[in-house]
Amino acid sequence: MQLDQERMAEGILYTDQYQLTMAQLYYRLGWQEKLVQFDHFYRQNPDYGEHQAGYCINAGLGSLLDWMARARFREEDIAYLRSERGSQGTQLFADDFLEWLRQNGDFRGINLQAIPEGRVVHPNVPLTVVQGPMVMAQILETSLLNHLNYQILIATKASRIHESGRGRLLLEFGLRRAQGMGANAGARAALIGGADYTSNVGISAVLGFPPKGTHAHSMVQIFMALGMSELDAFQAYADVYPDDCLLLVDTVDTLASGVPNAIRVFEKLRRKGHKPMGVRLDSGDLAYLAIQTAKMLNDAGFSETSIVLSSDLDELVIWQIITQVQEEAPRYGLDPEAVVSRLVYGVGTRLITSWGQPALGGVYKLVAVRDNGQWQPAIKISDTPAKTPSPGHKRVWRLYDVRGKATADLLSLEDEDPREMDEVLLRHPTDQTKFRTLHRSEISAVEELLVPVLVEGKLVYDRPTIAEAREWRKADLARLDPGVRRLLNPHIYHVSLTQRLWEMKHALIAAARGDA
Amino acid sequence: MQLDQERMAEGILYTDQYQLTMAQLYYRLGWQEKLVQFDHFYRQNPDYGEHQAGYCINAGLGSLLDWMARARFREEDIAYLRSERGSQGTQLFADDFLEWLRQNGDFRGINLQAIPEGRVVHPNVPLTVVQGPMVMAQILETSLLNHLNYQILIATKASRIHESGRGRLLLEFGLRRAQGMGANAGARAALIGGADYTSNVGISAVLGFPPKGTHAHSMVQIFMALGMSELDAFQAYADVYPDDCLLLVDTVDTLASGVPNAIRVFEKLRRKGHKPMGVRLDSGDLAYLAIQTAKMLNDAGFSETSIVLSSDLDELVIWQIITQVQEEAPRYGLDPEAVVSRLVYGVGTRLITSWGQPALGGVYKLVAVRDNGQWQPAIKISDTPAKTPSPGHKRVWRLYDVRGKATADLLSLEDEDPREMDEVLLRHPTDQTKFRTLHRSEISAVEELLVPVLVEGKLVYDRPTIAEAREWRKADLARLDPGVRRLLNPHIYHVSLTQRLWEMKHALIAAARGDA
Repeated sequence: MQLDQERMAEGILYTDQYQLTMAQLYYRLGWQEKLVQFDHFYRQNPDYGEHQAGYCINAGLGSLLDWMARARFREEDIAYLRSERGSQGTQLFADDFLEWLRQNGDFRGINLQAIPEGRVVHPNVPLTVVQGPMVMAQILETSLLNHLNYQILIATKASRIHESGRGRLLLEFGLRRAQGMGANAGARAALIGGADYTSNVGISAVLGFPPKGTHAHSMVQIFMALGMSELDAFQAYADVYPDDCLLLVDTVDTLASGVPNAIRVFEKLRRKGHKPMGVRLDSGDLAYLAIQTAKMLNDAGFSETSIVLSSDLDELVIWQIITQVQEEAPRYGLDPEAVVSRLVYGVGTRLITSWGQPALGGVYKLVAVRDNGQWQPAIKISDTPAKTPSPGHKRVWRLYDVRGKATADLLSLEDEDPREMDEVLLRHPTDQTKFRTLHRSEISAVEELLVPVLVEGKLVYDRPTIAEAREWRKADLARLDPGVRRLLNPHIYHVSLTQRLWEMKHALIAAARGDA
Repeated sequence: MQLDQERMAEGILYTDQYQLTMAQLYYRLGWQEKLVQFDHFYRQNPDYGEHQAGYCINAGLGSLLDWMARARFREEDIAYLRSERGSQGTQLFADDFLEWLRQNGDFRGINLQAIPEGRVVHPNVPLTVVQGPMVMAQILETSLLNHLNYQILIATKASRIHESGRGRLLLEFGLRRAQGMGANAGARAALIGGADYTSNVGISAVLGFPPKGTHAHSMVQIFMALGMSELDAFQAYADVYPDDCLLLVDTVDTLASGVPNAIRVFEKLRRKGHKPMGVRLDSGDLAYLAIQTAKMLNDAGFSETSIVLSSDLDELVIWQIITQVQEEAPRYGLDPEAVVSRLVYGVGTRLITSWGQPALGGVYKLVAVRDNGQWQPAIKISDTPAKTPSPGHKRVWRLYDVRGKATADLLSLEDEDPREMDEVLLRHPTDQTKFRTLHRSEISAVEELLVPVLVEGKLVYDRPTIAEAREWRKADLARLDPGVRRLLNPHIYHVSLTQRLWEMKHALIAAARGDA
């Protein structure tokens, strides 16, 4: 694509055709300014097949806001829509509608509330709430879901990998295997969710993190093709980067060639007063090789250099590596914790694509329509009760127990406030036999999760930096039950409705069933 | 990101940090203009878990060429690199290197050969061959792999889905579930690989295809929230789009409400001389519902309207739906082929993310270095013989048998031409006991697959349109053995080496093993 084509493909037309055909219908009925509310939420935590997430990390809002601030129907976009033809060759979008879009086709009328990036979030909780004129609130759907679904997915995966690596340095390496230009959004989300740095230079530049990386196998190969050796390649690298020398040791043979050559180079660096950074292992039995490498480095007096591991890592592989190191390191006379604490993880494909579940099924559902000055809750009944969203305006609360751990997220009507209740009845959203009651004495804190972000399209929100979003994540994870954080078969976190919201929802379902 | 940040994140810095640290090393050694050759290929067809691809569809070259034509080290990029710091706080990239990049940091020196987009391709065959000065050929790696890996993956998935749907209309609907802005590349690849249209408006505009889509559940819900009915919603839609009326019939109840209401609206359209397009089913047992819907439409005299199916479709689900229709339709007095032939498939998440295998492991491997006026083949030995790429300059041929079916892809040395051989010995790349001989009489045609694309950075290639790439795909699939096209357990297509290439490769491996 040429630049002007890219602008078109990434601007307001970054949407589905049906948003525009519906928009014209609403315009034709005179409903274009009628206010509606859509809730964005997801229904299930990612399930990777052998393992499942017990929570998600919210992400993507900043990218969406940037898009919304720029996207509008430009003359070029209008000209394209004017050229669209129906099956009989007539103009699909009429001139009066296109003129309305030209004048009103931006997001200045939108109110948006959201849960901040970096926060731990749960299924069926509104993460983003959009109120606005029907036409533009509808057109927003596709891009909103595209921006938020993927970043939540990747922030969540990064958090799991970071947890399985026990918080040791995590590097995002996935650019070459990412799904096209999604790589940049993926790296951003990974940085929120658990990656410390990324190899992606451009997104590092934009977000203000130093990009990470040293050299590839091809460097060693080039030296060898020119009649030189792996040692020559390492030495040349060390000469140029004496204070940033991290060597990839598996091009020829990790233990017979790579590590001994690296140690020779490191010894020279040490004599000159430099501190070598470490080695990277990219193939083979990484746990075994990490132990042997640690031993060789220790014996040469380099007990503090890092050992970077890469090669199709994910949370389960890292868990297995750590377990294996803990079991085997003592047999070689090593302190396993000392080995584990010098490991660094470079994670590519399986992080940037969320291997096992490469999409989050986030949805954007109509929950209310304003008519004659009154908001009407809207409901979509479904054969699967769990798929029926909670209608109308709601507030979202997180309740903490006396240990300071989050015990439930609670959806309430707009005029309810659990902080004013002596006891809070938590209803299961669909199963009427399931509920529990929390007395005020059992609740250490109540927090409202949705914050105002846009009012009439204007930003009323102090946008957090990536570093601030990370702090949210860390604080929320610390307040999350360890059972919910488990990699396999996590506890199900409670997302509940107040009694009044429950009654309203089920009265609407009954009425809709009766109507239908 | 702001626009200028997007430019930075999607330009020449859309690469891995290690490409730049290696580049500086090569510059420091005076090797920046030394010529190297990298081959891009993938090692295994996608394996989706329960099912596997027997071939891939090549895609992405056009997008890569657009990127290469624009990407270069601009002042802003240089300024960023100048700001990068090593561990001791010193400038990581020296001014002389940065000045060299500012003057030479583009792809004007690159020669590139490739197999055209849309063609059927196989593992371990060079799909893209890059020759050029060491620094820029190395920096190109990350973006090349990012552009090509994802589009090959999606074109392949689209081809499988198109085949399982027996060539019926296939619509790409995945924008909301795609991995960020990768959506646009994914839609492009889907259009090459088998999708007829996409719902994505922007990419449709750029590529010149009409975007497809009509309305969502939310439209029916809005009418109902305002005290009206599904029928009112359908009628309003038909009034605005009388010649393009396709109605989503599962918001309330598909067979009890949606289809009867659609038929009422269609009857009115018919009386006014319009031809309704059809209905869309988005939930439930799609095979059963398609049969019942077909019967109701037939009984009302609408035997030609389409029935669009959507909801987590992929090649296996479509296969199952068609099988079930074939078995069950006769019980309801319907001709199963008439039902199958009116089906249209809207495929979202599982196409745009290549669910089951969301990344292709394409690689970019050094195979030769030019030194003292001579090309030196380069080899990376590996514990897994199948992972050792064939070294040096090569040509790629496709041999067709007397039926006109492709029987093998053959890699040869640069001075070999199977068209001049009386018989062709096909060696298995790694297993020395496996080979076969084809006599000239058994070969109906020999085709060279790689074509020149860039010579010294200049386009020498008549870039195919998406429509032309589709024609390649159709022609190649028609010449592919049905066993290789199977959805499950496909035959393994032969990719072979000539005797001389085999000998050269194994001599180099032996020499490298001896050296190591």
